[in-house]
Amino acid sequence: MNIAVIGCGYWGSHILRNFNNSESWNLTIACDLDKKQLNKVKSQYPNVELTSNPEDIFKRDDIDAVAIATPVFSHFELAKSSLLSGKHTWVEKPLTSTVKEAEELLKIAEEKNLILNVDHTYIYTSAVQKIKELIDEGALGDILYFDSVRINLGLFQHDINVIWDLAPHDISILEYCTGKKAVSVNATGKCVMPYSDKNIENVAYLNINFDDGSIAHIHVNWLSPVKIRKIIFGGSKKMLVFDDMENAEKIKIYDSGVRIEKKEDIYESLIQYRIGDMVSPSISNKEALKEEVEHFYQSIKSSTNTMTDGEMGLRVVKILEAANQSLNNNGQLVPIL
Amino acid sequence: MNIAVIGCGYWGSHILRNFNNSESWNLTIACDLDKKQLNKVKSQYPNVELTSNPEDIFKRDDIDAVAIATPVFSHFELAKSSLLSGKHTWVEKPLTSTVKEAEELLKIAEEKNLILNVDHTYIYTSAVQKIKELIDEGALGDILYFDSVRINLGLFQHDINVIWDLAPHDISILEYCTGKKAVSVNATGKCVMPYSDKNIENVAYLNINFDDGSIAHIHVNWLSPVKIRKIIFGGSKKMLVFDDMENAEKIKIYDSGVRIEKKEDIYESLIQYRIGDMVSPSISNKEALKEEVEHFYQSIKSSTNTMTDGEMGLRVVKILEAANQSLNNNGQLVPIL
Amino acid sequence: MNIAVIGCGYWGSHILRNFNNSESWNLTIACDLDKKQLNKVKSQYPNVELTSNPEDIFKRDDIDAVAIATPVFSHFELAKSSLLSGKHTWVEKPLTSTVKEAEELLKIAEEKNLILNVDHTYIYTSAVQKIKELIDEGALGDILYFDSVRINLGLFQHDINVIWDLAPHDISILEYCTGKKAVSVNATGKCVMPYSDKNIENVAYLNINFDDGSIAHIHVNWLSPVKIRKIIFGGSKKMLVFDDMENAEKIKIYDSGVRIEKKEDIYESLIQYRIGDMVSPSISNKEALKEEVEHFYQSIKSSTNTMTDGEMGLRVVKILEAANQSLNNNGQLVPIL
Amino acid sequence: MNIAVIGCGYWGSHILRNFNNSESWNLTIACDLDKKQLNKVKSQYPNVELTSNPEDIFKRDDIDAVAIATPVFSHFELAKSSLLSGKHTWVEKPLTSTVKEAEELLKIAEEKNLILNVDHTYIYTSAVQKIKELIDEGALGDILYFDSVRINLGLFQHDINVIWDLAPHDISILEYCTGKKAVSVNATGKCVMPYSDKNIENVAYLNINFDDGSIAHIHVNWLSPVKIRKIIFGGSKKMLVFDDMENAEKIKIYDSGVRIEKKEDIYESLIQYRIGDMVSPSISNKEALKEEVEHFYQSIKSSTNTMTDGEMGLRVVKILEAANQSLNNNGQLVPIL
Repeated sequence: MNIAVIGCGYWGSHILRNFNNSESWNLTIACDLDKKQLNKVKSQYPNVELTSNPEDIFKRDDIDAVAIATPVFSHFELAKSSLLSGKHTWVEKPLTSTVKEAEELLKIAEEKNLILNVDHTYIYTSAVQKIKELIDEGALGDILYFDSVRINLGLFQHDINVIWDLAPHDISILEYCTGKKAVSVNATGKCVMPYSDKNIENVAYLNINFDDGSIAHIHVNWLSPVKIRKIIFGGSKKMLVFDDMENAEKIKIYDSGVRIEKKEDIYESLIQYRIGDMVSPSISNKEALKEEVEHFYQSIKSSTNTMTDGEMGLRVVKILEAANQSLNNNGQLVPIL
Repeated sequence: MNIAVIGCGYWGSHILRNFNNSESWNLTIACDLDKKQLNKVKSQYPNVELTSNPEDIFKRDDIDAVAIATPVFSHFELAKSSLLSGKHTWVEKPLTSTVKEAEELLKIAEEKNLILNVDHTYIYTSAVQKIKELIDEGALGDILYFDSVRINLGLFQHDINVIWDLAPHDISILEYCTGKKAVSVNATGKCVMPYSDKNIENVAYLNINFDDGSIAHIHVNWLSPVKIRKIIFGGSKKMLVFDDMENAEKIKIYDSGVRIEKKEDIYESLIQYRIGDMVSPSISNKEALKEEVEHFYQSIKSSTNTMTDGEMGLRVVKILEAANQSLNNNGQLVPIL
Repeated sequence: MNIAVIGCGYWGSHILRNFNNSESWNLTIACDLDKKQLNKVKSQYPNVELTSNPEDIFKRDDIDAVAIATPVFSHFELAKSSLLSGKHTWVEKPLTSTVKEAEELLKIAEEKNLILNVDHTYIYTSAVQKIKELIDEGALGDILYFDSVRINLGLFQHDINVIWDLAPHDISILEYCTGKKAVSVNATGKCVMPYSDKNIENVAYLNINFDDGSIAHIHVNWLSPVKIRKIIFGGSKKMLVFDDMENAEKIKIYDSGVRIEKKEDIYESLIQYRIGDMVSPSISNKEALKEEVEHFYQSIKSSTNTMTDGEMGLRVVKILEAANQSLNNNGQLVPIL
Repeated sequence: MNIAVIGCGYWGSHILRNFNNSESWNLTIACDLDKKQLNKVKSQYPNVELTSNPEDIFKRDDIDAVAIATPVFSHFELAKSSLLSGKHTWVEKPLTSTVKEAEELLKIAEEKNLILNVDHTYIYTSAVQKIKELIDEGALGDILYFDSVRINLGLFQHDINVIWDLAPHDISILEYCTGKKAVSVNATGKCVMPYSDKNIENVAYLNINFDDGSIAHIHVNWLSPVKIRKIIFGGSKKMLVFDDMENAEKIKIYDSGVRIEKKEDIYESLIQYRIGDMVSPSISNKEALKEEVEHFYQSIKSSTNTMTDGEMGLRVVKILEAANQSLNNNGQLVPIL
């Protein structure tokens, strides 16, 4: 199958490399507004055609699929044109800037019977696949709470705030692994000075409530000189900690069935660092994007949705939109429809 | 000086040991309702007098000071009697269950010219002393945000919820190190099943707003099989991380003045784990309680307030009370007077 | 039973505290040449008798046992007198300065039917007990190699070199956990300047060969500003890592049965950080010395040897003596008889 | 400049990618005996010529340089032919299987005025560059000892033992960073069963003595299910620890000037985890091989030796050969000429 890539910046360059290395795909055209980026593509992939006009892609009949890795505000128009021209479409996360736009894309994809894949890459990591597997087989028990801290380096002068930039990772992992239905969200955030001149929130806290009474808490932040990416899944049987900055121990699973009630056990527990055993399963170090590129190919061939389909993309945007609304209303609780 | 200790349970036993080992103090009487606890005291400190009635202490003239390490609900009555009987008084944290009670204790202590010390032991650790010193000398710049995660093992069937149990540590550290004035608080929490039968919150999140626009976020939790005690001080110059579960690297200070704006630097930063150098200062491993016991003695001798005086104790209780009110009103913002 | 303690310095003070807190023992007399140390004992344990002459202890009939925590060179004479006066005897590690002395002590203890305990405290930690249990039940398979790195802070102007100071820990753990018979040893070491004026080795490496073909390697070192205490047990089924500087994860057990032979698996393994799962069992944080004090009591009562009896003490001294001989002969292989 | 790559296996594939991505180089021909490997190259780099006969490369005039990434035993013949055909030559580490061979290659390269680069990639990491810089500016003081533990996953059925496979990394780092002259070496090792059928050592310990009295100790091992790559540089002023398995804190520098002599300071130090401050400098995450590819180009253009030239390659092989000789003679001290 022939793939075209629109947007050859940081993330686009990884997409290009993986489609090029795949035996399922022919990397056919690359598109970017920036000539410098196109020259770089040329030197690495001399056989790939280049263009700065996306229409050159949409109008061609030999292109099977299009991958879009451009700024968020342009996702909707590009993805819409791509789908309308009959191409299977891959869109970088988040899918769109609004729920309405996302819903329109889903409708077109459905009508035209095309695969719409949202590039929530994390879902394709061995770690998230392992977590999903553990939750599905009941190893953790019921998931009672979810807590994520995701802190990235320095400040980026984005057009989107830190929630739209970082929270899609956590929300998509949560959606994929637990399948819980979010009913309301409460968000606070701040543009902490002196990091930024624009009034874009660079630290934010989200509380998401689910229909089964469980809760999720997400702390996203651009202010740190050191990366933190740590997620806790608190289950009724076990607690799982996913620390993505760890190499050899990305996932740790702790026994948590313990219930301390006797006074002496409480004293005892006060001097302990841990109760119960901990297991750290082996996690493969495979590149997630490589897996996603193959999965996208297989999904098109078998006409089945990807693991990160438009539906998931839409649900993520719904929570982001509600969170932003709460943020702009002093943290007021906002229902998710 | 002669000290009496009321409450010889887990924390009381540490207080007893430190007053006994101190050359400044004579450990004179120990009081507990539980005979078993008193027998244990007897075997370790054969010369200490024992009683199960606090009045035996208050009525004596040779007792200079009283340390109270009993459940929170009993703090007010015991501390009030102790102060009224003219004794310098040491109260385990939090000072009282209500702001009103705390204010009354402060008033009595002031009228009778007595030292009232609230046992916020963390303040006396070498780590917190180091943090205070760094902030005071401007090494971190302005503190823009504060983020604490404090997770303890298992469930304790307390009469107080997780906020009253754990947040006093973080609030007192914040109060002591930054001296910022809290203006409002927003708290959410949950009694996550199936850990508890009673409806006592075992996981909670606090957002505190300060008059200078900075914010604090505190996550307290009883649900984990592994302890986490990690505080971030986000300063305009440096970020400090205090991880109390670490032995050799309790404090890490990261350069954070970096401001990434050029596109290429952003790409570069995306593959980095850290920007700027990190310094981990040497922290002494001295026992905080030993320091506090000597500080209490010196404060009485010099008639000066302790570092953890009634004023601090009161400010902590004010935030706790407001947080609880917010918790009971769906996370509504509650002003702190 | 009545216990006397000779030597009230750093380690002696811990011994005093644990015998005092034990309900099995009466701490009766403390002995030290240094008046300052005795005064300190007085203030903490006002009922304990004091002396600066060990003979005051040996001649008394009411003393059941004696604990000796003095410099190594004095162990032999004190322990000999103690045993000859009919007292069960506890000696700080290493038992003696020579094999000959150790053998003489064992002989006396046997003739007089007395318990001789060598204070290899590590054996009584929950971690070492857990390791022994795992090895005994075959969880690790055959122990193929043992590798220990033990690095302590700064330089101590000892009369003994770093091998005699630190290696007894590792050798006793190895002896206790595996019961292997050491047949020869090879040691190199150095007095690395400028830390020391005296010519006492402060860094050393030991290679011990066992009769079953397995090997042990021990790196001991006084030169570091940071402590390292890490032991690897390489088993045919699993590898166990014991990191004593860790709080919550002291022991980690890795699957190691994997045998990589296919070229593609080799490539795959090159980008991995770990193969197979890892389990970190829960380890209690109990004080080892407290356990040892009770075990000493029970052993005396039941007339059975302690887990760290004279035999173990002797085997440790044999390896130390051979290692020192190798060190003084350019690392030549020295047999252990 | 036109580059040919001989050997397209695991390491060869990384070399291919970096020469292809470089703007200084044209990746012209790739050579491998295995057709499958060549097909893989074809799909990723469609414009690259393919051959299974190295002579096709040596006889061409348009090839400026050759990179050899084949098994060690074939290095000498291939590199010799390459140099004799007038091509600048890049050889995977270790340079050759014997000192004699290495010396012959150096002679030819010198006579023909060609650049001979040994691919000791580690030297081009930001971490090693930082260490070299710190040592050169005297930040660590004199390097008194060097201690490395390098443990790789699983067993590889190599034709070379673990010393020849892993120790070149440590020896080249040591050579590059300190420039010390090794005078003798002492090595022990073992083929620990049941990992291997062949009698190839899979665990080994090297002690290297330098002319200035300092020492190096290297522990190399294939037996572990988890990777360890940790090097200590013990300096008279500071101690540096390089942990290559760490992401954010690869290098830690500890103050080590402390000299503890007073009895009380010794006691104090016994309860500490660390003395003095620790600094972890920021280390860039750039790909070392990319740096080396550019450095090779610049060195050819300016006719200057690379940082990892034949001389370094020879010195490494000298130590390896002496170590192997010691290993085969029960750890006897072997001089290095």
